[in-house]
Amino acid sequence: MANDIQMKLVEALKEKGLKAATAESLTGGLISKRITEISGSSEVFECGICSYSNRIKHDILGVPNDILEKYTEYSSETAVAMAEGVRKLSGADIGISTTGIAGPNGGTAEKPVGLVYVGISTKNHSFAKELHLSRNLPDERDKIRFAASSYAMYYALKELENYEF
Amino acid sequence: MANDIQMKLVEALKEKGLKAATAESLTGGLISKRITEISGSSEVFECGICSYSNRIKHDILGVPNDILEKYTEYSSETAVAMAEGVRKLSGADIGISTTGIAGPNGGTAEKPVGLVYVGISTKNHSFAKELHLSRNLPDERDKIRFAASSYAMYYALKELENYEF
Repeated sequence: MANDIQMKLVEALKEKGLKAATAESLTGGLISKRITEISGSSEVFECGICSYSNRIKHDILGVPNDILEKYTEYSSETAVAMAEGVRKLSGADIGISTTGIAGPNGGTAEKPVGLVYVGISTKNHSFAKELHLSRNLPDERDKIRFAASSYAMYYALKELENYEF
Repeated sequence: MANDIQMKLVEALKEKGLKAATAESLTGGLISKRITEISGSSEVFECGICSYSNRIKHDILGVPNDILEKYTEYSSETAVAMAEGVRKLSGADIGISTTGIAGPNGGTAEKPVGLVYVGISTKNHSFAKELHLSRNLPDERDKIRFAASSYAMYYALKELENYEF
């Protein structure tokens, strides 16, 4: 999983004539920033939503309030609903989402810093991956966010490689 | 205009009890990424939209099609409409937008690489700033995007400092 994962993702999307959209909580726009670093990415990327509150996850992405209440925003269920939501909102072929706790504050025993959910949604199916990215290093907020953005693009790329659209 | 402009912006918003939202084209999520680097930024930042196509600028941000057709997406008028749009969509107190040409492709004699418009919108008034950020250096796409994101946060900070809300 190289740092040029965004280049590989953009190339795979171009090759297949597909578009991606992002719904980012934990990563705060880092995935869309990395995708749009690539000149020509506008062919395959039109829409990224940074939904940094539950209100925006619900009001703009359409994440059901009962999911947010029952599972919290740090859950597979929310990650899937975010990815589905941005895919449908934008008309993209694949939705990519992140939610979790980047720290240094906000962690609990049950949901510690570094707990991250990546969501992927296509018309075929939607799923989430649970990741544990804390290494208990100082100043790891940036590292957790960067790793989460890389994993999210990696799972999107695998989805593109493994399934017909 | 230091690189820690995002820290100053988050602190000013916290001090005044206000919220910001972003609508990014050229910068592609870089402003929301930089704001959410700051732990605790969720108090003052809930929503960032990366609208990388005119369709998304219109459909999600509500930029009128006649503005996009008459002035193009690279214009003060579009920057103001994006900033207003995300402010109203999110319920934030200040909307911050960017649009322009990061290159290396897409520039013309009339609208060259490095032409950037930053938009700011509050309930009091909305305005745009035209910037020329190309220095004709190699690989300047990242530099133009970073500088544009810094200027956008700088103008937002000045707005917060100069006006009562």
